[in-house]
Amino acid sequence: MRSFNFFGRFASAFHDYPSLSKIIFVSTVSGGSLIAYAEASTNNGNRGHVSHADAITSNSIAHADANTSKKKKVVVLGTGWAGISFLKNLKNPTYEVEVVSPRNFFVFTPLLPSVTCGKVEARSIVEPIRNIIRKRNIDVSYCEAECIRIDPANKKIYCRTARTAINTNSKQGEEFAVGYDYLIIAVGAQVNTFNTPGVEGNCHFLKEIEDAQKIRRNVIESFEKASLPNLSEEERKKILHFVVVGGGPTGVEFSGELRDFVNQDVLKLYPMVQHLVKITVIEATDHILNMFDKRITTFAEGKFLRDDIDVKLGSMVTKISENEISTRAKGSDKTTSTPYGMVLWSTGIGSRPLTREFMKQIGQGNRRALATDEWLRVEGCDNIYALGDCATINQRKVVEDIAEIFKRADKDNSGTLTVKEFREIMKDVIARYPQVKLYMQSRRVRDFVDILTEAKGNAAKEKIELSIEEFKSALSVVDSKMKNLPATAQVANQQGAYLAKCFNRMEECEKNPEGPPRFRGTGRHRFQPFRYRHLGQFAPLGGEKTAAQLPGDWVSIGHSSQWLWYSIYASKQVSWRTRALVVSDWIRRFIFGRDASGI
Amino acid sequence: MRSFNFFGRFASAFHDYPSLSKIIFVSTVSGGSLIAYAEASTNNGNRGHVSHADAITSNSIAHADANTSKKKKVVVLGTGWAGISFLKNLKNPTYEVEVVSPRNFFVFTPLLPSVTCGKVEARSIVEPIRNIIRKRNIDVSYCEAECIRIDPANKKIYCRTARTAINTNSKQGEEFAVGYDYLIIAVGAQVNTFNTPGVEGNCHFLKEIEDAQKIRRNVIESFEKASLPNLSEEERKKILHFVVVGGGPTGVEFSGELRDFVNQDVLKLYPMVQHLVKITVIEATDHILNMFDKRITTFAEGKFLRDDIDVKLGSMVTKISENEISTRAKGSDKTTSTPYGMVLWSTGIGSRPLTREFMKQIGQGNRRALATDEWLRVEGCDNIYALGDCATINQRKVVEDIAEIFKRADKDNSGTLTVKEFREIMKDVIARYPQVKLYMQSRRVRDFVDILTEAKGNAAKEKIELSIEEFKSALSVVDSKMKNLPATAQVANQQGAYLAKCFNRMEECEKNPEGPPRFRGTGRHRFQPFRYRHLGQFAPLGGEKTAAQLPGDWVSIGHSSQWLWYSIYASKQVSWRTRALVVSDWIRRFIFGRDASGI
Repeated sequence: MRSFNFFGRFASAFHDYPSLSKIIFVSTVSGGSLIAYAEASTNNGNRGHVSHADAITSNSIAHADANTSKKKKVVVLGTGWAGISFLKNLKNPTYEVEVVSPRNFFVFTPLLPSVTCGKVEARSIVEPIRNIIRKRNIDVSYCEAECIRIDPANKKIYCRTARTAINTNSKQGEEFAVGYDYLIIAVGAQVNTFNTPGVEGNCHFLKEIEDAQKIRRNVIESFEKASLPNLSEEERKKILHFVVVGGGPTGVEFSGELRDFVNQDVLKLYPMVQHLVKITVIEATDHILNMFDKRITTFAEGKFLRDDIDVKLGSMVTKISENEISTRAKGSDKTTSTPYGMVLWSTGIGSRPLTREFMKQIGQGNRRALATDEWLRVEGCDNIYALGDCATINQRKVVEDIAEIFKRADKDNSGTLTVKEFREIMKDVIARYPQVKLYMQSRRVRDFVDILTEAKGNAAKEKIELSIEEFKSALSVVDSKMKNLPATAQVANQQGAYLAKCFNRMEECEKNPEGPPRFRGTGRHRFQPFRYRHLGQFAPLGGEKTAAQLPGDWVSIGHSSQWLWYSIYASKQVSWRTRALVVSDWIRRFIFGRDASGI
Repeated sequence: MRSFNFFGRFASAFHDYPSLSKIIFVSTVSGGSLIAYAEASTNNGNRGHVSHADAITSNSIAHADANTSKKKKVVVLGTGWAGISFLKNLKNPTYEVEVVSPRNFFVFTPLLPSVTCGKVEARSIVEPIRNIIRKRNIDVSYCEAECIRIDPANKKIYCRTARTAINTNSKQGEEFAVGYDYLIIAVGAQVNTFNTPGVEGNCHFLKEIEDAQKIRRNVIESFEKASLPNLSEEERKKILHFVVVGGGPTGVEFSGELRDFVNQDVLKLYPMVQHLVKITVIEATDHILNMFDKRITTFAEGKFLRDDIDVKLGSMVTKISENEISTRAKGSDKTTSTPYGMVLWSTGIGSRPLTREFMKQIGQGNRRALATDEWLRVEGCDNIYALGDCATINQRKVVEDIAEIFKRADKDNSGTLTVKEFREIMKDVIARYPQVKLYMQSRRVRDFVDILTEAKGNAAKEKIELSIEEFKSALSVVDSKMKNLPATAQVANQQGAYLAKCFNRMEECEKNPEGPPRFRGTGRHRFQPFRYRHLGQFAPLGGEKTAAQLPGDWVSIGHSSQWLWYSIYASKQVSWRTRALVVSDWIRRFIFGRDASGI
């Protein structure tokens, strides 16, 4: 079978040498350009084809005591955006990396809402972690377990094999310890129920791939249940009342997906109950998508009105029972109860047990997430980093250091700063405190001196001299621009890449620090602090319409943004496999509609 | 967005008018021809686009009492091969059909073993029943429930909403009754554990799509568990010992798939444990694939030896504990116990609780499956049919009717039959008793008279005269050729199509019966009895090699049969959607390998 051999060889070449896949793939689908490009990867090594002997050796090394090995051991907890981004960007071969996570795959979370109604298949948006790491030319191993305790004093973590096995006899629940030189906590977050009674047990969440699969089965199940012969109209209506709690991007996207599913597929498959479907979005604040531009909020609310999606604004969920959801309008004491069939709870995030436990241990007990400094180091710990949804950067305020900054700036010890002295010090201040830049952007100035001039009644720039009090008052306002980064994939991704770059140059920067000067103390910081670059955000609204808020206040709404959304999400896929699968899922849905099998 | 509209319109045209899809699609992949052809469907109607009002009306009619409606009500239990084949072939619009099944989709079962290791995705081989029925121009509705009791006296079945819902509040466990004029039982079978202790709870089965998904997760899980750092070599070996009980086509195909997965993907993803994998097939008889030709059996056993798959022949499983599987060799008293990681139990089928219960009710309590006559009517019941794995045809023996046949044949009442008389009656006998034809095929004669001549010492044909005794002894041997049909998709499929054709012509044949004459009684049978036409069988062995046993003793083994397998299984898909998905899954696997995410 020569033909078979040819095809087999071709396929295995593609399979074995992923560098072959660095082909620019431009597919122009009927004018709407669907562009999927390979991200240029600087790593050409292939670590997959090690011999048995090699594999066993590297495995034994990986599990040997870190102290006896020359390589520094980095333990990464989590295989989400932050962890994977770190792994994909780490290039320094002097580390030995061990990834510990109960989930042996990465999930492309922005497409989770698409899975809930079958626009995309669950398996199309996951990539095995072993597939990702075997393409790296660094020493990295993976261990499917959950970290249950961190012992920073002894530089050890304790793990437990996590997943419930299907066969009853395989090892589980056993604990083992892993030592580390550096620990990277990227375990993500879990859903926050705000202690609302009845949420656990009656609601769906949408954080993991299993959640999306469950929702999909439940949606189909609802239509099947509502089509049974032994029901009253009231009962059918109850079963087909879908409630979404939380008008953020996830809740809004799910509502849109569900509306599309009802309009496009339910119409054909369950025509007798289609008119009974009701979708309600409950939002506690005054608007849905309130983190977006006003124009987007208005458009989304208008579109949902036209789509017959009921949006209840200023409404708090007080309780969810087995059959009813109770809400209270803002500023009112009256509680209303409505029968429902299914609830998706997508309101906000809370910390995982491991994170909570560790925060207590290191005296951060009353915080929402692990506090780190601007270099993503967990405050109060050595060699422990935290990033992604489980962490927040505790941005240092300028006012805290203001006396030291002034002293450093006042080179001639005159007690006042000239404009020249001020300008010089501001370079370092901007590098050290990101909020200064944000403040300048919000005031739309390129030179901080312009703000001073304005404050001084438009005095001539060069004549200004600042006393320490004036300096303080000028800079104290900038701290108002400090804010926590949103818990998004984008932030986690950038943090992972940032941290990997720090690790890549760790030794180099130890000798030649490249960060801003230390205002308290001497010398410079090793690295520049982490800076988040917001690249925009999408909010798909259903009906092939998406709202996009792009950098520079550019707002785009409608079909064109939908195509932009397709292009960007195809290009951002973590592998060529998932890229091909996601694109083919979209095409499949266009041609054949969504599958309604209850699996 | 003109381009979008164009594409959308094109897609929806394809989507709405499935007749567009009747395009011959020939894809020649590098010489190995992969042919997927549309089965010519004579039904062009489209029932999907009914208005609300229509839909509600048809729904109300469907659930109204069957007696008040003019149409005869046919209730079909089950959405497997037999049920779907019946629905796809039913064309007579004078029936009102209601399908009752706890599973709202059809599964292309021959590809189930492919799902276990990720060669094909689970969703690619399922098709929603509603998608199938909406394309039919007959009055058919579907109800997701399980039939729990049949009341033949009152022509009613009792159903219960079956699946455990994910949200806790939707109706389940409620019973309701459905009336029928004709009942078609096609509920399939379940695994037979032969009461071996420990099988339930410790073993995997492979009957449903969920089973295949569980096996896939378990296989991945086994490799992850075996890669954990805290294990001894012994423990790793135990976890990676995969045992298959039963050397039939399912067990053999799974072993081959697993071996392929280990050789092709585990090598790259889990190189450190690859050498510890052991696959054992335990078979109670002397050979694996014993329903196939000797050549295939020998080839398969040889291939498994080369592939390092341990085949234990003549070995009975006596007990399966949490950690060990105990076997006893044939003719020996000694029991051996071996540690295992995972067991697939694929030995044979037993009847479902509903079937068992119904058999007791109608006095067939001690049988393996529901007994029907050659027209698929359940013995002792009116208007109840059974087909597929839940039924066996109780073939009538020729000897039982031999006196009546002789009387009918002996037109001149001479007490003996001339060859002419014999030839005439044999036409009817062959039509009524399929075993006669099988006997003639086994003797390789076209004319039964040749057998007589031989028996009579090659006397001159035309001079033969047969007494009743001679007639009896000549025909008694043919009953030895009677055998039960195998429990395969092919049989169920042909039975469904046969029954639909009977239903299509029910009224017509009531007036003008087209079956063979009744030897006991007068007139003719309404229809020809069911005849099974064996079209061959495949046994994929892994490594892109398949054994095929085709009609006329044609045996084909190797790569070429694998391509034949691809072609036939692509062409036999129930819809264009699954066809496209299955083919793209095969291509995906060639290019990217199997996905090892534990979802």
